[in-house]
Amino acid sequence: MLKGDERLDYLLAENMRIIQSPTVFSFSLDAVLLAHFTYLPVHKGSIVDLCSGNGIIPLLLSKHTEAPITAVEIQPRLADMARRSVAYNKLEDQITVLEADIRNTAPALQKEKHSLVTCNPPYFASLETNKFNENEHFRIARHEVMCTLEDAVRVSSELLKQGGKASFVHRPERLLELTQLMQQYRLEPKRIQFVHPLKARDANMVLVEGTKDAKPGVRYLPPIMVHQENGEYTAEVKEILYGKVE
Amino acid sequence: MLKGDERLDYLLAENMRIIQSPTVFSFSLDAVLLAHFTYLPVHKGSIVDLCSGNGIIPLLLSKHTEAPITAVEIQPRLADMARRSVAYNKLEDQITVLEADIRNTAPALQKEKHSLVTCNPPYFASLETNKFNENEHFRIARHEVMCTLEDAVRVSSELLKQGGKASFVHRPERLLELTQLMQQYRLEPKRIQFVHPLKARDANMVLVEGTKDAKPGVRYLPPIMVHQENGEYTAEVKEILYGKVE
Repeated sequence: MLKGDERLDYLLAENMRIIQSPTVFSFSLDAVLLAHFTYLPVHKGSIVDLCSGNGIIPLLLSKHTEAPITAVEIQPRLADMARRSVAYNKLEDQITVLEADIRNTAPALQKEKHSLVTCNPPYFASLETNKFNENEHFRIARHEVMCTLEDAVRVSSELLKQGGKASFVHRPERLLELTQLMQQYRLEPKRIQFVHPLKARDANMVLVEGTKDAKPGVRYLPPIMVHQENGEYTAEVKEILYGKVE
Repeated sequence: MLKGDERLDYLLAENMRIIQSPTVFSFSLDAVLLAHFTYLPVHKGSIVDLCSGNGIIPLLLSKHTEAPITAVEIQPRLADMARRSVAYNKLEDQITVLEADIRNTAPALQKEKHSLVTCNPPYFASLETNKFNENEHFRIARHEVMCTLEDAVRVSSELLKQGGKASFVHRPERLLELTQLMQQYRLEPKRIQFVHPLKARDANMVLVEGTKDAKPGVRYLPPIMVHQENGEYTAEVKEILYGKVE
């Protein structure tokens, strides 16, 4: 089932496994926190995860919802890994992996239809090609080569029905840009949560949820602190990563 | 020196006193945290505090800067109290109280000249007059009767020289509106700090600092938690309010 340099990593809190490889983008804490943060339709509705990578977010969400989930990923190698992880965890009935450009998902995904879109987009603006010293897989996952922040927000809004929710994770430096794009594309920001690496350090990640065509008014949730002074994860993050300790 | 129902309250951390009265707006933690949060020119430059009330922010700042400070307050009773507090603390050489509408401070205050503007503006949108069941002093201090958020931001920007800073405190619900107005009026948001009443509760206050004509890019500072679980102030807030315990 594994190909080349791939390995089968544990998702401890959900008691699942996921295929990863050192030569393509592995999932990070960002995706785990987004899956934990987002609103989730439990019994009805449908979910789309854009820029899905190796499918980490659909895998994590599947444990907490019966709704069908579509993972959209443009990179063939990552989409293939996601599909095999879905099969390994026997989730083919719930999770569909769509190898596609998010800007061009019709007719597989209908517009104005879904109840939730999640997206952990590339964080960095696209630079000139010769400035990259990383492989193509990392470049596409990290830089706005195939998908700008505006693409991610616009497509999320198009896919959602009225009242549907979109959840994003991004760098705080781009939060004002993100919230402005969300308002421009009818996704009113409703919940924002900052993530700080340590209690006494600036935020280095932010989680944002918007509702399509909602009234303005944002809640700023208690922040998540990732590490304790001694470098260990905090109890809160341990529980998210490893599950509740009995 | 005191008139009618006034009393002389302590500002413990700064070893000063301030005149307050139960029938007009008293200073709140918001103003104290803004004075603590803001950038401050220490030796040179000049400072303006808009919507100054009884002058709490200029009084607090005066202990940490030699720059001249102008307090602008539209309500005669509050401006008079501020002036007497300045006199009581022997700060007439540093703090000038200007009884004026912030929209009309010329010629007393020059435009494009100052290095810092602070403002703790009215938080609530103006409602129809018959909906208020508070006295006129409270109404003007709390509601956008004499000064909208846009007035506060526009005037702050007009007063500042290039590279000057403006610091505001407001409710989180209006942060996106505030940052958009700041960008519209050339005050690029650079530092944002949320204040949570308790560690596990949503933010109920936010501090924002912008720099005139700066490049975009915001830092989100470690949040301030006001109370401990037992209701006491946290060590951080105690130190801000009462000074460092020896």
